[in-house]
Amino acid sequence: MSASTPLRVVIIGAGFGGLEAARALARAPAEVTLIDRHNHHLFQPLLYQVATAALSPGDIAWPVRTIFRRQRNVRVMMAEVTGIDTAAREVSAGPGLRVPYDALVLATGATHSYFGRDDWAPVAPGLKTIEDATDIRRRLLLAFERAELTEDEAERRRLLTFAVIGGGPTGVELAGAMAELARHAMPREFRRIDPAMARIVLIEAGPRLLPSFPEELGAKARQSLERMGVQVLTGLRVTGCDATGIDCGEERIAASTIVWAAGVVASPVGAWIGAERDRAGRIKVGPDLSVPGRGDIFALGDTATVTDAKGRPVPGNAPAAKQMGQYVGRLLAARAAGQAEPAPFRYRHHGDLATIGRRSAVVELGRIRLTGLVGWWFWGLAHVWYLIGFRSRVVVSFEWLWSYLTFQRGARLITGREPKGGNATPVPGQARALEKV
Amino acid sequence: MSASTPLRVVIIGAGFGGLEAARALARAPAEVTLIDRHNHHLFQPLLYQVATAALSPGDIAWPVRTIFRRQRNVRVMMAEVTGIDTAAREVSAGPGLRVPYDALVLATGATHSYFGRDDWAPVAPGLKTIEDATDIRRRLLLAFERAELTEDEAERRRLLTFAVIGGGPTGVELAGAMAELARHAMPREFRRIDPAMARIVLIEAGPRLLPSFPEELGAKARQSLERMGVQVLTGLRVTGCDATGIDCGEERIAASTIVWAAGVVASPVGAWIGAERDRAGRIKVGPDLSVPGRGDIFALGDTATVTDAKGRPVPGNAPAAKQMGQYVGRLLAARAAGQAEPAPFRYRHHGDLATIGRRSAVVELGRIRLTGLVGWWFWGLAHVWYLIGFRSRVVVSFEWLWSYLTFQRGARLITGREPKGGNATPVPGQARALEKV
Repeated sequence: MSASTPLRVVIIGAGFGGLEAARALARAPAEVTLIDRHNHHLFQPLLYQVATAALSPGDIAWPVRTIFRRQRNVRVMMAEVTGIDTAAREVSAGPGLRVPYDALVLATGATHSYFGRDDWAPVAPGLKTIEDATDIRRRLLLAFERAELTEDEAERRRLLTFAVIGGGPTGVELAGAMAELARHAMPREFRRIDPAMARIVLIEAGPRLLPSFPEELGAKARQSLERMGVQVLTGLRVTGCDATGIDCGEERIAASTIVWAAGVVASPVGAWIGAERDRAGRIKVGPDLSVPGRGDIFALGDTATVTDAKGRPVPGNAPAAKQMGQYVGRLLAARAAGQAEPAPFRYRHHGDLATIGRRSAVVELGRIRLTGLVGWWFWGLAHVWYLIGFRSRVVVSFEWLWSYLTFQRGARLITGREPKGGNATPVPGQARALEKV
Repeated sequence: MSASTPLRVVIIGAGFGGLEAARALARAPAEVTLIDRHNHHLFQPLLYQVATAALSPGDIAWPVRTIFRRQRNVRVMMAEVTGIDTAAREVSAGPGLRVPYDALVLATGATHSYFGRDDWAPVAPGLKTIEDATDIRRRLLLAFERAELTEDEAERRRLLTFAVIGGGPTGVELAGAMAELARHAMPREFRRIDPAMARIVLIEAGPRLLPSFPEELGAKARQSLERMGVQVLTGLRVTGCDATGIDCGEERIAASTIVWAAGVVASPVGAWIGAERDRAGRIKVGPDLSVPGRGDIFALGDTATVTDAKGRPVPGNAPAAKQMGQYVGRLLAARAAGQAEPAPFRYRHHGDLATIGRRSAVVELGRIRLTGLVGWWFWGLAHVWYLIGFRSRVVVSFEWLWSYLTFQRGARLITGREPKGGNATPVPGQARALEKV
C-alpha cells in the first residue's frame, strides 16, 4: 500500500472496541467506514439501570454519527452486514450494498448464550440492547401491576418473584437494582400489594458470585445483596425455564420475570470468514489481533480470544475492548503511513467493579479494594466520567442525585407491546470492568 | 347515598381530565378507582418533541401511581376496560375483573380519525401515545440513514421528503420541529447527503393553518414555517396514501415519512353505554357534564361534546379537559358529602398557543398576541410550568437549554423493530391550548 492512496479500513460494530479503532485512525491517511446495525453506540455497563427504570435509553446511548461528526475520514453506515467476501475484499450489507476494504476490523461483540437451550430465550431474555432493556423493564413493571389486580394469592406470589440467572457482574447488578426498585421506589404507591414483599432470587451454578473477581469481593457482594433481601442461590443449576417459572433439578421456583445473565457467545462473524474459533465462538487471533493467515483482518473485544504478551487471557469487558480497539487503530494508522507496526498487544488490567444497589459497590484496583459506600461513590464517579459527552454526564448525574434523594425512579414507563422474547442477533461487545484509575 | 358510606367513583382514563377529577375528590368521602390501560400519564402537548428526538419518553410521562401515592382514597388500576354494565353499575376490565361504581367518569379521550380510510393508518401514523412517537422518530431517523446509503437519486429525494397531513397545532408544531431537526441537528454528520436539503411538506385541506386560532396567528405561523423552509400547501385534499407517498388529486408527492395530524375521533366508550353521540363520536352531555338520562355517568374532555353556559362549544384541548375534570370531581365531592351540587359547567378560555421550531411561537391570550421570540419564551415557560413534578421540569429545561446552545438533540435513537403502522385504540385526550396565564 503506497502512502499516497488512503488505506480503506472497514470496521464492523460501533461498540467500545470499534469506536476506539476508528478514533485511533483520526490522523491517519485512511478512509474509515464504520458499520453498525444500530444508529447508536450504547454504554452497556449502565444498561441494567434502563432495565430497572432508573435511567432512560437516551441517557446511555448516542448516535454514532454525532460522535464522529468532526472526524471527517470516518463514514458511518447504519446497515446489517450479511457477508464478507475475503477473496474480493468486500463486505456485503444488504442488497446492492458492497463496501470494499484494504483492512477489515471485526468488532461485532457477543450475544446471550443459552447453552443449546434457545427455547428459553422468549421466557428468560438477556440484556444486551436497548430493546432488551425496555422489554425487561416492561416485564418487571407489569408484574407489579398484575399482582395488584389479581385476587389469587399464589399467583400474586408468583408475579412478585423475579429471578436472575447468572452471578457475574450483570446478574449481581441487576438483582441489586431490582431489590432497590421493589423496596425503595415502589412502596406507598400500591393499595393491595406491598412491593417490598417481592422475592428476588439470584441463581448461580458455580460455587460463588463474581467468579472473575477476587474471592473476598464475591463474598462481600453476596453479603450486600442478602442484606437488601435478595435470595442468593449458588451451586444451583437451572434445568428448565418456562413462562411460569424455573426448574433447578427437583426444585421449582414460580416466577413472573426471569432474566438471563448466565452466558454469552460471540457473534457469528468468525464463521463467515472461516476462522478458527473457541467454544464461545470467539476468533483465535494472533498477538497483533489479526486473524491467523489473514494479515488484513483483525478481530477484537468479545469477538476475539487472545492471550496477551504476558500469557494471560484478555477478559471480555469494556476496558479490554477499548484497549484492543486502540491497538488495532494504531497498527492500521502505522500501516497506512508506511511506518513500522507496533509491538504485540498487551492488556493493562486496571481493576474490576460492580455495584449492588443503593450505596454499595465492590471495587478492585490491583491491591486496593473498596467496598460499601466508598466503593459506591467510586463506582458512580467512574461511570459518569466514562459516559460520552457533557450532556449525558449532567443528565445522568442529575437523575442519580434525584433518585438518591427521593427514592423515586425517573423512567418507570411500561411501553411497547406485550413481551415478545429475547433477541438473538449480534450486538456490540459487553462491557463491565473499570477502564483506568 | 348516605354520607357515611363512601361514594364509589370509577374514572376511566388518566389523561388531563381524569387526573383532575380524581384530584378534586381528594378530601371527599369517596373511594376513587382510576383505570388506564397505560401505567403513565402523558403530557401530550410535548409528544411531538419525542417524535422529533428532542425529548425522551421519560421526560413527559409519569406513572399514574406516583402522582397519587399520597392521595390514599385513589386506587390506580392498569387495565383495559372491555365493557360497562350500566344496569349492574359495573365496569369490566378483563377476565374476572369487575369494578362496581356509584358514579362513573368517562375520560377516555380520542384517537386518530382517517375519515373512513383506516387503510392509511399503517403508512400515515398519528401521534397520540409514546409508542406512536417513538415509531415516528424511528421512521424519520431511518429515512436519513437510508438516504445516506442509497445510490439512486430519485429514491434519495423521496427518502428525504417528509409530509405532515393536517394544519392544526399538532401539524404545525411537528412540521416546524422536523425542519429544525433536518436543518440544525443533523448537518455535518452525514457524508453523502445534506440533511438540510430535506423537503418538509405541510398539507392542509382548509384555506389556512391553525383554523381554531385567530386568522392573524395562522398567517404568522405560515410565515415562520416558510422561513424555516417548510412547504405549506393549503386548500389541498389528500386522496390517497401509500408506502411511497401521497396523492392529492392529480398531484403525487413521493415521501418516505407521512404523519397524520388531520383528525380525531372519540374513543368508543359512548357506544358501550348507548349514549347519543355527534359525528366525531363524542357523547352529547348535559350542562353538568352528565350523560342525559344517566345522572351517575359523566363524560369529559375529548370523549364529550358540550356547549357551555355561555352557549359556546368547549374546545378539545388540555385546559378544557382539566376544567371539565375539576368540575366533575367537585360535583361528585358535593354529592358524596350530601351537599348541593354546583351550577352548570362554564369553560374559561385563557388562550391558545403553538410553537414553530426554534425561537418562534404564536400565542393568543384574549387581546394579547405574542409572536416570534417573545411568544417562544412564553410558550417554553408555560410548558415547563405545567409539566408534572420538579424532576421533569429540571430535566426538560436542561434538555432544551442544551439543544438551544448546541443545536444537538438528546434522544436521537432508532429503537424497536421496523415500522409497523398506526395505533387505533382509545387513549387519553389530546391537549393543546394554554391553561392559565
